[in-house]
Amino acid sequence: MTYKKTLFILIALISCGHGRMAAADQFITSQHDNQSVVLFEAGEPASILLYDNADKGIKRAVSDLQNDYAKVTGQQPGLLERFTPTEKPLIIIGTLGTASAVDELIGRKILTADALKGKHEMYLITSVSNPFPGVKEAIVIAGSDKRGTIYGIYELSKQMGVSPWYYWADVPVAPKESLYFQKGVYSDGEPAVTYRGIFLNDEAPALSGWADATFGGFNSAFYGKVFELILRLKGNFLWPAMWGSAFYDDDPQNGVLANEMGIIMSTSHHEPMAMAQTDWHRYVERNSLPNIWDYNKNAKALQQSWKYGIERSRDWEKVVTVGMRGDGDEAMEEGVNIALLEKIVDDQRAIIEKVTGKKAHQTPQVWALYKEVQDYYDHGMRVPDDVTLLYCDDNWGNIRKLPAMNAKPREGGYGIYYHFDYVGAPRNSKWININPIQRVWEQMSLAYEHGVEKLWIVNVGDLKPMEYPISFFLDMAWNPRQFNPQNLLSHTEEWAAQQFGRSHSKEIARIITLYAKYNRRVTPELLNERTYSLENYGEFERVVNEYLSLALDAFRLYNQLPVAYKDAYYQLVLYPVNACSNLYEMYYAVARNRQLVVKKDIRANHYADQVKESFLRDSLLQVEYNTVIANGKWAHMMDQTRIGYFSWQQPPHNIMPKVTYVTEEEANNDNIFLEQHGFVSIEAENYARQQNGELIHWEVIPHFGKTVSGVTTMPQNKYPAPTEEITLEYDILFETDGEIELQLLLAPTLNFNDNKGLRYEVSFDDSKPQQVNFNGHYRGELGQWQAEHLIRSVTTHTLTEPGMHTLRYRVLEPGIVLQKIVIDTGGLKPSYLGPPESSRHIPDSESR
Amino acid sequence: MTYKKTLFILIALISCGHGRMAAADQFITSQHDNQSVVLFEAGEPASILLYDNADKGIKRAVSDLQNDYAKVTGQQPGLLERFTPTEKPLIIIGTLGTASAVDELIGRKILTADALKGKHEMYLITSVSNPFPGVKEAIVIAGSDKRGTIYGIYELSKQMGVSPWYYWADVPVAPKESLYFQKGVYSDGEPAVTYRGIFLNDEAPALSGWADATFGGFNSAFYGKVFELILRLKGNFLWPAMWGSAFYDDDPQNGVLANEMGIIMSTSHHEPMAMAQTDWHRYVERNSLPNIWDYNKNAKALQQSWKYGIERSRDWEKVVTVGMRGDGDEAMEEGVNIALLEKIVDDQRAIIEKVTGKKAHQTPQVWALYKEVQDYYDHGMRVPDDVTLLYCDDNWGNIRKLPAMNAKPREGGYGIYYHFDYVGAPRNSKWININPIQRVWEQMSLAYEHGVEKLWIVNVGDLKPMEYPISFFLDMAWNPRQFNPQNLLSHTEEWAAQQFGRSHSKEIARIITLYAKYNRRVTPELLNERTYSLENYGEFERVVNEYLSLALDAFRLYNQLPVAYKDAYYQLVLYPVNACSNLYEMYYAVARNRQLVVKKDIRANHYADQVKESFLRDSLLQVEYNTVIANGKWAHMMDQTRIGYFSWQQPPHNIMPKVTYVTEEEANNDNIFLEQHGFVSIEAENYARQQNGELIHWEVIPHFGKTVSGVTTMPQNKYPAPTEEITLEYDILFETDGEIELQLLLAPTLNFNDNKGLRYEVSFDDSKPQQVNFNGHYRGELGQWQAEHLIRSVTTHTLTEPGMHTLRYRVLEPGIVLQKIVIDTGGLKPSYLGPPESSRHIPDSESR
Repeated sequence: MTYKKTLFILIALISCGHGRMAAADQFITSQHDNQSVVLFEAGEPASILLYDNADKGIKRAVSDLQNDYAKVTGQQPGLLERFTPTEKPLIIIGTLGTASAVDELIGRKILTADALKGKHEMYLITSVSNPFPGVKEAIVIAGSDKRGTIYGIYELSKQMGVSPWYYWADVPVAPKESLYFQKGVYSDGEPAVTYRGIFLNDEAPALSGWADATFGGFNSAFYGKVFELILRLKGNFLWPAMWGSAFYDDDPQNGVLANEMGIIMSTSHHEPMAMAQTDWHRYVERNSLPNIWDYNKNAKALQQSWKYGIERSRDWEKVVTVGMRGDGDEAMEEGVNIALLEKIVDDQRAIIEKVTGKKAHQTPQVWALYKEVQDYYDHGMRVPDDVTLLYCDDNWGNIRKLPAMNAKPREGGYGIYYHFDYVGAPRNSKWININPIQRVWEQMSLAYEHGVEKLWIVNVGDLKPMEYPISFFLDMAWNPRQFNPQNLLSHTEEWAAQQFGRSHSKEIARIITLYAKYNRRVTPELLNERTYSLENYGEFERVVNEYLSLALDAFRLYNQLPVAYKDAYYQLVLYPVNACSNLYEMYYAVARNRQLVVKKDIRANHYADQVKESFLRDSLLQVEYNTVIANGKWAHMMDQTRIGYFSWQQPPHNIMPKVTYVTEEEANNDNIFLEQHGFVSIEAENYARQQNGELIHWEVIPHFGKTVSGVTTMPQNKYPAPTEEITLEYDILFETDGEIELQLLLAPTLNFNDNKGLRYEVSFDDSKPQQVNFNGHYRGELGQWQAEHLIRSVTTHTLTEPGMHTLRYRVLEPGIVLQKIVIDTGGLKPSYLGPPESSRHIPDSESR
Repeated sequence: MTYKKTLFILIALISCGHGRMAAADQFITSQHDNQSVVLFEAGEPASILLYDNADKGIKRAVSDLQNDYAKVTGQQPGLLERFTPTEKPLIIIGTLGTASAVDELIGRKILTADALKGKHEMYLITSVSNPFPGVKEAIVIAGSDKRGTIYGIYELSKQMGVSPWYYWADVPVAPKESLYFQKGVYSDGEPAVTYRGIFLNDEAPALSGWADATFGGFNSAFYGKVFELILRLKGNFLWPAMWGSAFYDDDPQNGVLANEMGIIMSTSHHEPMAMAQTDWHRYVERNSLPNIWDYNKNAKALQQSWKYGIERSRDWEKVVTVGMRGDGDEAMEEGVNIALLEKIVDDQRAIIEKVTGKKAHQTPQVWALYKEVQDYYDHGMRVPDDVTLLYCDDNWGNIRKLPAMNAKPREGGYGIYYHFDYVGAPRNSKWININPIQRVWEQMSLAYEHGVEKLWIVNVGDLKPMEYPISFFLDMAWNPRQFNPQNLLSHTEEWAAQQFGRSHSKEIARIITLYAKYNRRVTPELLNERTYSLENYGEFERVVNEYLSLALDAFRLYNQLPVAYKDAYYQLVLYPVNACSNLYEMYYAVARNRQLVVKKDIRANHYADQVKESFLRDSLLQVEYNTVIANGKWAHMMDQTRIGYFSWQQPPHNIMPKVTYVTEEEANNDNIFLEQHGFVSIEAENYARQQNGELIHWEVIPHFGKTVSGVTTMPQNKYPAPTEEITLEYDILFETDGEIELQLLLAPTLNFNDNKGLRYEVSFDDSKPQQVNFNGHYRGELGQWQAEHLIRSVTTHTLTEPGMHTLRYRVLEPGIVLQKIVIDTGGLKPSYLGPPESSRHIPDSESR
């Protein structure tokens, strides 16, 4: 629900509780009319008025706005810290109740912003007349609080055409000649969920490798980019990377910057008291304390470290994780009793009170019911009412627990810890996006409708390539009820339009939707040669072809896009589709290889080669992503292994599936074909025996004709002597007998020999050969011949009994090329190429 | 057969008649050793010594060599017209017996070139020591005659890395730091076939449009490019464009330039006496003669025009077409008698003798046995022995007639007029390459082995996109016996390497081979929605998927190639594969649309949309080829229509196949599914009836889950009252009865409701509902659940009789999402996703 209304209606709506929106209505246009205010025109940039007493985080956002505006228009807007007369378009920015320019306008009754009063993280964007002497009209961004103002600033950026993903996915900014503000009052209302954030997790080797190469680690240069992304997506919360990292300790500026920019920090579900697990290890080392993560044995040291954690972050906005799990996100040892766990929480709260000098409930806290911790809860463990209960999914997007419908409200409310990425059994899912928003919506909506509205946090792995589901998750956290089954796909289309413009947004949305669906059928890490059925319902072929077709569509679009969009498209669309399609092709080839090896069928080798090729392609795509795209910006970002799992844990490097080659010696060259389903179909080259003449010999011409090859005699100017037998024999195991129809599929060779005709003989076993002059006297007049480019020469034969029979084919002329043999024993159905080749008899005990 | 031998061995081989080669051994290298002569090193360009008395055509080729050398090295080699002392590497060029630099070296016994004596179109490339004072070593290109020298010059160009297709397919030239000549004597020997050429035909709208836009018509600027290409491919012969064009008349420089460059001109099979048909019409108009193309009625005018034709071209190398067909390449009127036709030839020869002042047999002549003319021959018509008999294929690559094995040699020998392109019944083939070299080789080899070695001419349509088969045809015309079934694919690989380098030549050769094969299964113009079987052997799907997969591979490679190669690759590989694949997709969608429309199945509309999309894509690809690739160089080159044929002749513009939409009203919404093959499979959204509650209703979530969608109840926090029936009903027509197994494929939703469980009820007809708590007490521990991301909930039921039954599904909890229903009636086979959806019953008389 988006709207542009008079302020009156807006206020009315907001006070009725309907004021939540995913995004404000589009208020920036390129068309001037009498309802629009100039923001950029004729090369003249705007000025921004932000009083210099403004919050540092807001100043930062305004600086981003200046840069964004410059990217769109080519002109940097000036920044006024006090009003000075200007001819330029003016953007006035301020937070309610902070002696801001906005407060001044309200005081002078030029602006009414009652709708913002007492609100949380809300902005209004509107225009005012004659705000200052000489300024006829100006645009105002007013925030109910710091983040409200910041969201308003980034909303303007977004509407001007700067995607929140401009940095993280290299989405280009389309330059514009002019920008106008369409008069009205715009707002997204308040967020439905208080804390809306992501968790950078399972971050090695990809994100960590990239951060090291790009910023020198998980420092404030890195986090500045993360915080900015979260704010642009209207999130406010972060669990930072913690595999061997300690947010506050790695770079003392990390905490400072988060607080300054307006990001509410926390530590992950199992890291209590604003201390990363790595922090704890460093702390005890630094202070020569026992490194024992056990409250029974080492309470003093733990308390001391926790006190340190709370003290360090005392002045910063945060949510404190309470409770305790085992070291390194493991379950605690057996027999931990609930009383002890409750005491831990009590002691933690005592520390909080002591350090902050305030009642515990004045510091936001969260207790995560992750894995076994939920058991404690189910067995009766409770924490004080002001602590947020963080329910969890099963790490695979399926929510384990929700508040009962009749639960009484709790002060701390409820949260959900959700996963887009996971390390653990049955298998890691770290590489690629496997999260269809359809399931995310259905589960998170279920949670919201059960009262989960305090904290939504999602594990996003390396952040990339989870771009789209992150956008969806945070949009949904702002206003879950904006979505329903009918409009879900519109979100994907709008998002695609935001990154790539409108012209291809529908097709891009379709591709993004389908690849997420396909990847959720089975995750790439779990996919193998046995997942889909090779034998039944053509299943494996079908799913491979679905992915191939999607990859082709993705490539087609890639090549249509302007160059500026290719890096973004590669990351957001092409790479995941192409790389996953390649894995499907690889495992299909593995399956075919294994199937054919059992039959000692030499074609197994072709599939073995294909496996190698796909495996190589996978690594080349990784190199391309890491080193070529966006001029090599994404070093290491696709380092995550994905092939070669043999337990839940990832292999140290990708390992090619084992393939087997069938040697010429091993190969089943019996070439005995089986009559099945009422027909036999044999490619001409798969004869059982050949008989050459003195001067004449048989030759296979690879790729000749419509299917596999052609077989002919050479030299092409040598005629067999009348008694010379130049023959091919085909062995066939029939399950029926009686009259059969033999079709030879021949190249459409004409009677070049003075129209003498082209003759062959066919017979089964010892029966009298039938001689056929297959062209008759046709001389090459125009007709069906040319259209079909094939001669289907038919004879009928009678088999006296089922079982093994030999078809003998003899040529009496040179220049005849046989492509395929089809025998109708009663079940042959019409087709253009004839049926695919029949199965072969497997000798000895090696049944199929 | 290629080799690098001492001159002695070379001479020996040539005199034994084994001296024919497709191309000389590689003699240019980038590696210096003690067997190499410097050609470029350290930025120092070579000089070329060509005496200024040299033939103009050779001077032209030398000028090309200078430019080619500059493209490779960045340095233009200087041209010396007499030897002047030089420190630079030296290339000495000359033709035997023309007072050339080569003759001088022979005279001074510095060079031996006996191997060239009396030879035809042969070159030697070798090095000599101390040819001139101060020159230690030099490279020599010596020709037996003008074309021999020219071929030698272009051979050097090619070996330096300039493809014969550099202009016609924008093949880039890879720069090199140094060039060395590997010492030895190199030659391609003599050509096996005397006249080796192409026919520009059926050239509107594509080639003519391009020539108009680029050169202002088929003038000498255009033909200069054509002649150069032919020479670089070691051809020597051309039938020029003649749809409304007259080579000699359109631009008087055309004939001059052909003769200068060394191209032997002729007029096409039905245009006698060096007069294009358009020439004749212009001639009679100009001279106020009767425009009657009938020797009985208008012999004088015809003779006069023929005399004009021979006079005009008197001084130029040519082959004169003799005989007569109907006007505009039509058969002559009925009842034409052989005596008249023989008289025509006699009269034509008399004119030739008169104009040339030489015996007729001293002017090369050809008589084409095209279409009905072959009948005259077969009925006994004969022409003098010195006239070349030009046999023909049936326009589709199938040769109609060859000399008898025991035919006595004729002075004029035999030729073949072959087709890569054709206008006529059963349908034009003008758009794209449909010529697998395998069939070209097999047929032309057959011809050669039957003694056809005087003239090979192939109709190449618009020239593009026949690049590869043209190369193959002319390579083969030089030396047919170099090829055999085992090495054919190597030619494609070598050709790919010539255009794109070695790294991807194998894959490119595979793609080129397969698309030609696929396009010969049925030509794109003949392909339609009925060509392949939709019902049997999964044929249509299979061929579409083969093409899709090939297109994907083509795109993958496109994106791997360096930018410099993309234009060439687009023209030679990507466009034909992508555009043809798109046509397969389109006709498949047409077929599916028609199939589903009959069933009043709403999914028909999806395929109708796909047809529109493919049709649009086809036109966009044309625009891209014509206006984007190579900076818009190929204006009009893909203008040839290809979709919408309803007779043999092309439609004036592409016409989208008719598609039909099924309206909501027409749609068969009965949704009665058929049990077949022992199972029923139904997507959850395809229920027959739904029953909502007062507050609760059913919702379909598109794209939810593994196949089509999910169906759930909303709101997600509303529980049905105990008596409330929230149900979906499915109608199924069973062919069996007895015990059946029902599988509900459900989203893997957990017991979020305090582990109370998730319950549904199922029943058939009026039987007692079975209640299932499908999770039991599973709480979301890690396991198979997460791996499969699906719950397969099973119940068994008994049907008392076959026929229509209704499955009733009722939910007792919110949050349950049903994706698919599978019923095993005895024939269900294992698969991962369950079988594709079962067929639906077609109501009333509309049988399938």
